[in-house]
Formats: sequence, structure tokens, C-alpha cells
Amino acid sequence: MPPFDVVGIGNALVDVISHERDAFLDEHGLRKGIQALVDGPEAERLYAAMGSASEASGGSAANTLAGLASFGGRAAFLGRVADDQLGAVYAHDIEAVGVIFPLAPATGGSPTGRCLIVVTPDAERTMSTFLGAAAEIGPEDIDEDAVAAAGICYLEGYLFDPPQAREALAKAIAASHRAGGKVALSMSDPGCVERNGPLIADALEGVDLLFGNEDELVLLFGTDADAALDEAAARCEVVAMTRGPAGCVVARGDERVSAPALSVDAVVDTTGAGDLFAAGFLRGFTTGRPLAECARLGAVAAAEVIAHVGARPQVPLAGLV
Amino acid sequence: MPPFDVVGIGNALVDVISHERDAFLDEHGLRKGIQALVDGPEAERLYAAMGSASEASGGSAANTLAGLASFGGRAAFLGRVADDQLGAVYAHDIEAVGVIFPLAPATGGSPTGRCLIVVTPDAERTMSTFLGAAAEIGPEDIDEDAVAAAGICYLEGYLFDPPQAREALAKAIAASHRAGGKVALSMSDPGCVERNGPLIADALEGVDLLFGNEDELVLLFGTDADAALDEAAARCEVVAMTRGPAGCVVARGDERVSAPALSVDAVVDTTGAGDLFAAGFLRGFTTGRPLAECARLGAVAAAEVIAHVGARPQVPLAGLV
Repeated sequence: MPPFDVVGIGNALVDVISHERDAFLDEHGLRKGIQALVDGPEAERLYAAMGSASEASGGSAANTLAGLASFGGRAAFLGRVADDQLGAVYAHDIEAVGVIFPLAPATGGSPTGRCLIVVTPDAERTMSTFLGAAAEIGPEDIDEDAVAAAGICYLEGYLFDPPQAREALAKAIAASHRAGGKVALSMSDPGCVERNGPLIADALEGVDLLFGNEDELVLLFGTDADAALDEAAARCEVVAMTRGPAGCVVARGDERVSAPALSVDAVVDTTGAGDLFAAGFLRGFTTGRPLAECARLGAVAAAEVIAHVGARPQVPLAGLV
Repeated sequence: MPPFDVVGIGNALVDVISHERDAFLDEHGLRKGIQALVDGPEAERLYAAMGSASEASGGSAANTLAGLASFGGRAAFLGRVADDQLGAVYAHDIEAVGVIFPLAPATGGSPTGRCLIVVTPDAERTMSTFLGAAAEIGPEDIDEDAVAAAGICYLEGYLFDPPQAREALAKAIAASHRAGGKVALSMSDPGCVERNGPLIADALEGVDLLFGNEDELVLLFGTDADAALDEAAARCEVVAMTRGPAGCVVARGDERVSAPALSVDAVVDTTGAGDLFAAGFLRGFTTGRPLAECARLGAVAAAEVIAHVGARPQVPLAGLV
């Protein structure tokens, strides 16, 4: 197994993106900015109501790895698609950006998972995820050699949703630490923290780098944002708290480093902003940069991805820094 | 069958769009700005070489009908997809914009067709089309009642490529004229005219409205653009010749009406520019507007679609006029 900078584990999802008025959210009981889990029939019902859509490969951790590869980093992604057309599209897209994608597609089960993303005129995205084959990832899919070959094992919070994915996550954390690697966790989404807060809090003792936005940290600790950052920094070596247009604050022990967001001419679609912030930050971290520089790279990557529709970079991020 | 403003017939294709450097075209023997036909293995080979892509429903005539519906027009589309995931995506997207899509998906044959679109940094698009199930459309798919129920029967030039599609086209022309309707033809692409010039020229006697760009008209008649417009106007009641950023000239008999293109802040992707010009023009024509106003509506629709990735409008065109 060749050495990687980061091996990531997460849900392999095709994003299905349409533009809708705000009223669409109310009509379909969707909470703006939140990712909710839906079953197959609910996903079909919602899709039928959505306008003309475009499809693009997504998934939180996978977006981060695509971003890391776009910076020139070496990345692998463990996630499960089905043996169908959307699964083939998914594999093509992640391999096309240079990310190693070793798991074979699942046969005979659910179709490739998808994330129905409604973008409202304020560029906010509201997500309804049908996990499909993605939920079938389990501990047997965690190649301990692959995890051991990576300096960082990066996990998305959405893995706390399906029970066997939690087992996969625990196995990966153990394998990474056994090999002297670091474990990074992105909390993914406030809805994910609402569903899995106690599980995530318990897992923090195994997490070296924690990524989250203010809402997620506040929900996790039930305090205000500053106190939540302190709480997280007491448990994890490094905590990067994003604050949308207000930039980010990074904590390491008692150290606090703030960095601004980059200004963008027009924010088109915030999908992937957090994922790409993590990509830039990890690029800095895996190349030994100071925290302020890690945060700056995160801001560069986030600014690129919110300026267009879709959650992955459209230009090589290495060319932007 | 309810009355339609326009019933369109064409290839039902999913666009697969990636951004590549100019060198990619040379490396893969692609001619910039041209649509070429490829077989399944060649499509697979090219797709494997393309970078991370996004998928969106396309097809020349279908894009035009989606645009017409976006203006508030009543439209139906006859095109063939397969009974697969991309076919389901296609049906969703065209029905979501209000276009009637009556043909059942084909089973047991080729997969849903796709158009591999490489967008270069100059926003030009180069297309390699694997027709797949789209090529299976034939005369048996032309519902004469549907054609008779439409004021205009709109045909794309790409239908001249597969032999049985030519039969479908001839049947549709006859049915439209029998019912007192008008027949519109878009030449689609210079490559299509190179392949099918004599067939297209022969068909012009059955065409009332002809859409083409300068290159296509020049290729069709083997003269300069002005003379080609005269030749076309001698055969068809109305001819709309687009000239890219220079706007368009519309000919009816001896009458010539020029209209400018609308300025666009940033041209992102010219895919669909001609299709959407036709949509706006047809919206004007089917609502009895003067030629200059038809041309203006065409320019409005084209300007919207070239300002973003993808060949269909992202906002209701009715709101732009």
C-alpha cells in the first residue's frame, strides 16, 4: 500500500441539485441548511417534486479528499456505491481527480445513494439524503493497511448514522492510532450532531483534529460557541471552528488563531464549503504549515467551491495558492 | 391530445460535462466546437480520460422545448431513453419543466444516450455523442395526433444521422403539414451539416422555419453567409441565422431583420446557446410577435444559458422579458 496523506471514510453519494424558491422548503417540510435522512420512497417523492436537476458526485469526506487531491495531496477514499450507472459515475469522478477508490461496488442491494440538494435564492443548500448502498459500509470494508499507510484518517460525522458504519469508524480509529497516525473528524452538519451528539462526544477521545461550524460545536456541548471551542480543545489536539462569512477560529491547547473568509464576487451555492475548508486545512497540516496557514488554505478552497454550483473544485486548487 | 405550441423531435441525451485544457482536445483528436458521433467503446474511452464531470439532461431539441416551457409555452418532446437510471433522470428533468414526454423508455437495447461535453477555458464546448437508445426512435414513435395538435413541429438536424430517425422526421413533417402546422428545423451543428448536407438541403422544401448559424448555412449552400441566407430564404418562409456574439439576422422573403446579442458578464459555457435562441424565437413566433421581437426573445434566452454551466435555463425565462 503506497503512503497517503489522508485516507477518508464516508458516504459515497451522488448529489442531485435543483434550484427552488424558499416556499418549496415549507411545502415539503424541509429545514433550511440541514441535512436530513430519508428512505427510498420519501426520496422518490421529493425528487418528483424537485425541478430539473443536475447530478454531480458528492459525499462530505469524498469532497474533502477531492479537494486535497486538487491541492496535490495523496488521498484514498473508502465508501460504497452500488453496481449501477450512478455508481459508475461516482467511481469515475473520484478517480478522475486522483483519489484512490478501492472498494468494489455492492451488488444486489440498494442503489447508489444520493443527496437531494435544494438550493434556494440565498445560495443556501438543504439536503435530503437517501443513503442506499453507502449505508452498507461496515468494518469488513476497512482495510487496516490502507489506514495505516496514511498520516491522517479522516472521518465524516454522517458515519455515526448507520450502526455498522459506526463499527467501521471504530475500527479505522484503532488502526490509525496503532500505526501512529492521527484521526480527523468532521461533524458534517448540525442535523447530524442533533441525531448523534452523545456518540460523537464519546468518540472525541479518539479524535486528534476536529472540524465543525459554530452551530455544530454549540449543539455538541450545549454551551455558547467560545465555551464549546474550549471544551473541544480540551479533548482534541486541534479544533477548527468555521464561522461562515466570518472566517474561522483554530484552537490548539490554549492557542487561538483566527482567519478571515475570502471574499467571493457572488456566492452561488454553499454546498461543500465546510468540506473544502477541511481539504485546505488538511493540505496545510499534512505539509507541516503553521495553523494560520492551514486556515488560509481552507479559506481559499472554500471560496472556490461556493462561487459555483457543486461541491468539488472546478479548477486545480494548487493553482490558487 | 391537448393543443401544444410546439412538439419537438430529437435525440434524448444526458450531457456529461467536464472542464479540460485545450490540449485535451488535441490528445483525443477532438475538433473544437464540433459535435461528433462516437460508438459505445469510444465513448467509454473518452469518458475515462475526462476529469470529474457533472450530468444534466440535454439534447438539442429538448433544450429548446425546455426553454419554450420556461417562457410559458406549451411543449411536448418525442425522444427515446432506455429503462435505466440516466433515462429516469432524463424523464424527470424534462417533465419537471413542464414538457410533455410521452414515449416509454426502451428496454433491452442500448443504454440512455449521452453527450460527452468538454468545456475549454474559452467557454467553447466540444461534443462527442454516443446516441444509445436515442438512435432507436423511428416512424412508429411519431404520434400523428400529437404532431397535429401542435402549431409547430420542431426538428433537430441530428435526426438526419440515424436512418430510421430520418423516416420519423419525414412522417412528422407530413403529419404537421396535413394538419396545417408549420415545420421548424434547427441544423444543430456544423458537423451535422457536413455529414448530412445533401439530405438537409433536400428536406428544406418541407421546412417553414429554419434555424442555423453562419457556419452551418455556409456549409449547406457552399457560398458566403449572405448568399446562403438568400438561398435559404428562397426555400423557407423564415430563416434565423445566428452569428454568436454578433447577434442574428432573420430573413423572410426579401425582408432582413438584424438583432444584437445581449451582453453577458462572463460567458461560462456556450452549450445550448443555439438551442435557447430557438426557444426564445419560437416563443415570439407562436405568440404572434414581429420578427425583431422574436429575435430579441431568442437573444434573452441565449444570454441566460451561456452565463452558467449547462444547456437549460436556471431561472424562469418568462421572468426575464
